[in-house]
Amino acid sequence: MSERLTVTYRVRSDAAGIEARAKGIAVEQSVEMPLEAIDAPAVLSDIVGAVEAIEPAGDGVFSVRIGLALDTIGADAGQLMNMLFGNTSLQDDVILADVDLPASLNAAFGGPAQGLAALRERLGVPNRALTGSALKPQGMPVERLAHLAERFALGGLDFIKDDHGLADQRYSPALERIPAVADAVGRATRSTGHPTRYIPSLSGDLDAMRAQMRVARDAGLDCAMLAPMIAGFATLATLAREFPDFVLFAHPALGGAARIAPDLLLGKLFRLFGAGGIIFPNYGGRFGYSTETCQRLAGNARHTDDGLRAALPIPAGGMTLARTGEILDFYGPDTMLLIGGNLLMAREHIVEEAARFAQAVANHRHGRA
Amino acid sequence: MSERLTVTYRVRSDAAGIEARAKGIAVEQSVEMPLEAIDAPAVLSDIVGAVEAIEPAGDGVFSVRIGLALDTIGADAGQLMNMLFGNTSLQDDVILADVDLPASLNAAFGGPAQGLAALRERLGVPNRALTGSALKPQGMPVERLAHLAERFALGGLDFIKDDHGLADQRYSPALERIPAVADAVGRATRSTGHPTRYIPSLSGDLDAMRAQMRVARDAGLDCAMLAPMIAGFATLATLAREFPDFVLFAHPALGGAARIAPDLLLGKLFRLFGAGGIIFPNYGGRFGYSTETCQRLAGNARHTDDGLRAALPIPAGGMTLARTGEILDFYGPDTMLLIGGNLLMAREHIVEEAARFAQAVANHRHGRA
Repeated sequence: MSERLTVTYRVRSDAAGIEARAKGIAVEQSVEMPLEAIDAPAVLSDIVGAVEAIEPAGDGVFSVRIGLALDTIGADAGQLMNMLFGNTSLQDDVILADVDLPASLNAAFGGPAQGLAALRERLGVPNRALTGSALKPQGMPVERLAHLAERFALGGLDFIKDDHGLADQRYSPALERIPAVADAVGRATRSTGHPTRYIPSLSGDLDAMRAQMRVARDAGLDCAMLAPMIAGFATLATLAREFPDFVLFAHPALGGAARIAPDLLLGKLFRLFGAGGIIFPNYGGRFGYSTETCQRLAGNARHTDDGLRAALPIPAGGMTLARTGEILDFYGPDTMLLIGGNLLMAREHIVEEAARFAQAVANHRHGRA
Repeated sequence: MSERLTVTYRVRSDAAGIEARAKGIAVEQSVEMPLEAIDAPAVLSDIVGAVEAIEPAGDGVFSVRIGLALDTIGADAGQLMNMLFGNTSLQDDVILADVDLPASLNAAFGGPAQGLAALRERLGVPNRALTGSALKPQGMPVERLAHLAERFALGGLDFIKDDHGLADQRYSPALERIPAVADAVGRATRSTGHPTRYIPSLSGDLDAMRAQMRVARDAGLDCAMLAPMIAGFATLATLAREFPDFVLFAHPALGGAARIAPDLLLGKLFRLFGAGGIIFPNYGGRFGYSTETCQRLAGNARHTDDGLRAALPIPAGGMTLARTGEILDFYGPDTMLLIGGNLLMAREHIVEEAARFAQAVANHRHGRA
């Protein structure tokens, strides 16, 4: 019998129907055909999904654990997603809740080449939480975005990322923006002495992203961001493998609200595929994640007991300076706080506002973590 | 003012809150920051999303039309998805319902290089509906899949596709499977005289897919399939551009059940990005699409009044020979019927069962379309 990984689904069903429904998912996510039409014994024993457990989870929902053959996946990130939820994602009574990743699969993908530890070392910040902001709005020309980045960096922030809407637009072409912002941030870091990191957002197909990362590397950068749900899972895995000196930040765009548990998709799978920073919608902001989801997601991102490197969890979305203390207490120091639009409200005082943000994080004494 | 595309969202809200919620989506899907912090007049006038209409749609849901600046997109399929639904996908009160694609965007992406018309011409089938089946189960070695393909082709089917679970697995490596199945189908077509098409499933990153398509072309094939939600939207667009002699079939895996209207995502957007065949879950099978969704989806796939080529709609998922007449009446002749697992139930009589299927479609006199 070939090695299996165990997948947990949450299935809406009545008690009488759940066993048949669970078997249906096991078949759908493996051979996808009637078992009685399969005449190969090895396929029946080694490849067909196996229902391992069915447990009531309350409110007419069952937790269903299914063992899927690792042989069907190999080391292709897209194929892993396909086997976990490809067709079943089209059935609206099922949520993909969790995956127990076996050691062989962790080894095949490898997780982040660079994660939390590399970021702390590069920044020279061994203990405190990290700070970041975003370059916005899209529609601004390169020089204005570069100027804004310089002011954020003069305020002493650790990270400045492109807004995820910044792509390769005529008013701000990616291959011009990346070196121009890198230069501006470089000027500021020579003035502050703090090695602020610029995180450009990648767009286009794999080749376009490679070109953007080469330009980034030539400009002295070692971070980049992409949205795996848009770019494709294999695109993330390939870039992580080809640019092992970079920290890749995963953006949750197009991540959906509910069909795949966010702590699994963002916290566990994006890290598995190589993301060293995990951006996600914080609780209490303008998105719908609960505190429990956020806590589990952050925990999945930065655990290391699977032998892979910890990734940096980055709660974001409608964050304000006033919430700094609460959020740091909630997540602990191995976290980046990302305040975007709200810092921009300071307009001509952005340097000072960024400095207040950096200072608030530096001064925080953790109450909980 | 720059050109806009109009996006329709369905938003759950009370009447008192819908105007603010609509504005929130318009900001989220454009500049993603407080408008009062924007000091560039051109960004405010040209880039910020504009609420164009709000209409009650019943049951506490509103239809909200928002104009987004085309300048934010360029000709990047991923960036179009990002601007349509990137962050808003994370908010569970909103569904992406429809997009009015302006002529400039249609021209930028181009739709399928080869679609329904090319398929009819290559097959020499000007009028009737088309037939197909799938190679399953995964876990079988190359030679057994090739043998199965040959039997389907001997039965006179128009298309034989890889099951979407067939990737690049050690028991069936893609670069061995593609030419072997192509050879087997070729033998059958020389015997039947009918030019049955084999559609290999692509997997891995963009480079791996390119390699698979080159092997497919060398083997005389002109069709291939990929799942855009897994591979990345730009991956589909790039392959469509680089292999203009191929018909690309889009598989709905990981397409979700509800957050993006399937008639939009599969029927309209996948076609826009270059898919010439659109596989989707048929009503009345084991997936949740309604007859209305299926009808709209098929209509979106094969309309040509936008100047792009028609794509072939392919309802699938738990189809049976017994439903042939009903389904043909529902969709009309510009359709491929895909019967997968159910044909395989015939086991040693697969050639005859495939022939019955082909004959049933050929003999059908359309009652409706």
